[in-house]
Amino acid sequence: MKERIEGALERCLSALDDADTPPRLRQALRAAVFPGGARLRPRLLLTVVEAHGDPAPDLADAAAVAVELLHCSSLVHDDLPCFDDAALRRGQPTIHRGFGESTAVLVGDGLIFLAVETLTNVAAVDFPKAAATLKELMRAAGPREGLVCGQALEGEAHIDLGSYHRAKTGALFEAAAVMGALVVGADPVPYQRMAMELGLAYQIADDMLDHQGGPSTGGKTGNQDQRKGRPNAVASLGLSGAQERIEGHRAIALSHVEGLPDSGRLVVLIEHTVSRLVNAVNPMSSASSG
Amino acid sequence: MKERIEGALERCLSALDDADTPPRLRQALRAAVFPGGARLRPRLLLTVVEAHGDPAPDLADAAAVAVELLHCSSLVHDDLPCFDDAALRRGQPTIHRGFGESTAVLVGDGLIFLAVETLTNVAAVDFPKAAATLKELMRAAGPREGLVCGQALEGEAHIDLGSYHRAKTGALFEAAAVMGALVVGADPVPYQRMAMELGLAYQIADDMLDHQGGPSTGGKTGNQDQRKGRPNAVASLGLSGAQERIEGHRAIALSHVEGLPDSGRLVVLIEHTVSRLVNAVNPMSSASSG
Repeated sequence: MKERIEGALERCLSALDDADTPPRLRQALRAAVFPGGARLRPRLLLTVVEAHGDPAPDLADAAAVAVELLHCSSLVHDDLPCFDDAALRRGQPTIHRGFGESTAVLVGDGLIFLAVETLTNVAAVDFPKAAATLKELMRAAGPREGLVCGQALEGEAHIDLGSYHRAKTGALFEAAAVMGALVVGADPVPYQRMAMELGLAYQIADDMLDHQGGPSTGGKTGNQDQRKGRPNAVASLGLSGAQERIEGHRAIALSHVEGLPDSGRLVVLIEHTVSRLVNAVNPMSSASSG
Repeated sequence: MKERIEGALERCLSALDDADTPPRLRQALRAAVFPGGARLRPRLLLTVVEAHGDPAPDLADAAAVAVELLHCSSLVHDDLPCFDDAALRRGQPTIHRGFGESTAVLVGDGLIFLAVETLTNVAAVDFPKAAATLKELMRAAGPREGLVCGQALEGEAHIDLGSYHRAKTGALFEAAAVMGALVVGADPVPYQRMAMELGLAYQIADDMLDHQGGPSTGGKTGNQDQRKGRPNAVASLGLSGAQERIEGHRAIALSHVEGLPDSGRLVVLIEHTVSRLVNAVNPMSSASSG
């Protein structure tokens, strides 16, 4: 799975080597994608696809690349001085720290264009499926109810933590699973429900990690929520309240995969996704390699 | 034509009114699109489409909206402090001045997502044509040879003026005309050639306007090129050299429309696009209403 994802991303980015792309922009685009994090969203997408026999591997690869590039794009823009002003991401300097702020804006934009282009490049495999997949991704990223909507909520006076988490994080998890279902022609509803719960559990665990602070955990600048006055699950619910909430979302996510094809792999993915962060919060508990 | 373009843009933006989009982001998205400029790119696209009898009006409208939203997105990001740090655009405060820098970043991203979503919403009209149209738009906007590539060239030590203008401005003019041809199933090549020459003539005239300086011309902050040390046709070629270059591009553009259906309207569009800016440079010459 890891090789499949990294290989597909590598093919997409190396297509820029023969293009007019200025070298500095090319380097910055690569630095925004490699080395990656856990690649949770393409992993989720491809787990759904492989459970159904992977009938359209080129479309699946393109969808996996597209959802990961959109995620990387959002991280680059979210790290900018006018948002998080983060110095570190995945243990490396953030794009604006390494390449300058204007290049970071262009990298975020460029990754969106590459994501969409990657899906249009394989649209002929099955036009209706490619269009449905792309539409789902735009919904999850856009200002209506997706990522852009979630990030804009940070500027509002009163924010509901659940709405904020659903738009900022849940929507793209949801899109990954739904895109997987659309690629194979499966009913997207149980995947959608499972993925939203997983995304919410993940975001609360991420809030716990941020609340713990310091760049040593997760390879990124910590304590951002408190510094920026943003909603944080630990601040709202307390540490034990946040842990209970994670347990709740995890349990609902697991309930939605019952009876789905190859549900065992989905269970492992859910457990790893949640435990990886929860274990990082408390270094005394046994580390997971997920 | 004007009503068709404004109506299609209005329908796209007002779809956000019932969405979760925070009010401030919604206002900022509107301010980035209305009131518009000359709407040159959708005008070019629809002129090509209407010359061929407008056989797929929904797809044409979506393509026209998409190319204009991408243009608006690029203006919002290009006005940011890390690029032009512009105070005025179309006679109004720029988005980051009016709504803050983080909202401006989100508006630029959000307009890209809306552009792509608008085209995927009508993909069922003709899936292969919708996909080809979207692919052309991503080429023209992306880091390979489009807008993002052109803006990134500004950070390079040595820039070829022609390559810079082709990527930064020519590509999206080209895409507008090619998308029009793709929507109606016409040979895109003569449209592509005409539109690139038109885009280059337009950019040189825009450079002359910038060189002249002051916010009174064109409703935007002037003298940006000199302040930012960017290539400018007047600085490279002198005022008369720039004017000669515009004449050259204009003549080639006109040569490419000979023999095309309804070429008279294309001739008018080319003349108006070029003369509108050239007349603005020298206020003593008679103003065009194009």
